[in-house]
Amino acid sequence: MRFDILTVLPGLLESPFAHSILQRAQKKGIAEIHVHNLRNYSSLKHKNVDDYPYGGGSGMVMMIEPFAACIDKLKSERNYDEVIFMTPDGVTLNQGIANELSIKGNIIILCGHYKGIDQRVRDLFVTRELSIGDYVLSGGELPAAVLVDAIVRLIPGVLSDETSALSDSFQGELLDAPVYTRPADWNGHRVPDILLSGNTPEIEKWRFEQSLERTRQRRPDLLGE
Amino acid sequence: MRFDILTVLPGLLESPFAHSILQRAQKKGIAEIHVHNLRNYSSLKHKNVDDYPYGGGSGMVMMIEPFAACIDKLKSERNYDEVIFMTPDGVTLNQGIANELSIKGNIIILCGHYKGIDQRVRDLFVTRELSIGDYVLSGGELPAAVLVDAIVRLIPGVLSDETSALSDSFQGELLDAPVYTRPADWNGHRVPDILLSGNTPEIEKWRFEQSLERTRQRRPDLLGE
Repeated sequence: MRFDILTVLPGLLESPFAHSILQRAQKKGIAEIHVHNLRNYSSLKHKNVDDYPYGGGSGMVMMIEPFAACIDKLKSERNYDEVIFMTPDGVTLNQGIANELSIKGNIIILCGHYKGIDQRVRDLFVTRELSIGDYVLSGGELPAAVLVDAIVRLIPGVLSDETSALSDSFQGELLDAPVYTRPADWNGHRVPDILLSGNTPEIEKWRFEQSLERTRQRRPDLLGE
Repeated sequence: MRFDILTVLPGLLESPFAHSILQRAQKKGIAEIHVHNLRNYSSLKHKNVDDYPYGGGSGMVMMIEPFAACIDKLKSERNYDEVIFMTPDGVTLNQGIANELSIKGNIIILCGHYKGIDQRVRDLFVTRELSIGDYVLSGGELPAAVLVDAIVRLIPGVLSDETSALSDSFQGELLDAPVYTRPADWNGHRVPDILLSGNTPEIEKWRFEQSLERTRQRRPDLLGE
């Protein structure tokens, strides 16, 4: 799977893609992540990528031309399944969308910055607008990293333990049960006895009940209650 | 405002905090962001921070001891308003929570990784559990960066144009109107005439209508409809 990310701040994305699961997926050849600096696609003398908004108002607006030039170049090289724009007014990302995107081939992701991007970019090139949540960030770079992380970990072979992704919160519609590791007693705070019992069926039952209880308390919406 | 972030992957957070608004806020002395490597707080010979889960099952669990040692040290140096754990089963972050946190003084943020963290960390130290959305990521590092970004940009003096944060999507309960910048005509795709008219009252009216229409189409929940 291949991601092409268009941004005015390519440096911001360096370290998230160079660690952990995203690094491993790239080393294994399972995912390719290419970050493109929009300034390289500006035809203006000073490599500007933004300008004042028509009609006045605060903030700068990202111009259509660098986006169009970069997208055209990428599309001339291969086909893309999606051109996704990360924006707080997009459809809210959830695990179902991440699952759906994890079986795609090539995806372009556009990061906005400043006050927004020229509406014509959205009208002419974007196939899907996604938000990572109901809050405003300083740009689309962190949302792009979040989206890529949520997708890449679902691709078979990326996680070292293939059962891990399937037992995550949200995959089974229930939140995870509490987990514990050594020491069994930390300053008098003990691990629940059941987990030390070795009685696997009883442990599984306890975990299911804890999952259900936590979901009921925290996210009754997931149970449709 | 001060953030202390506890993680096993401090390198992952390097570039997001070294660019854009987060960099500017630190340079101006408005925000301090300290990233702590949990391995430095492990008393084990190989600096392990995780171990197998009690009761069996896949994935590793982060141990309480490194968290406790780092939190104790930080709390001995200053008071903290919150110890926040980023987790998909936490309360979903929204703009209201970001606003509320932006007037705090010192915040500790715990990043989970692997299969989760020992439940006793959550029971004994954490004051608030936050999720950035209903999807699973490979760790709490990107969510921590998202949270810090959402908060820091709200602190007065961080954004160059103080009106910008207040006119964002969600602050006014309406999504933003479309924005446009030069050129007025791009390959035959023109900016709406109204924005070129210079008639500010009419432009404001058009923007309000567009905002309302976009909100009604995309997020009727924000209008209570």
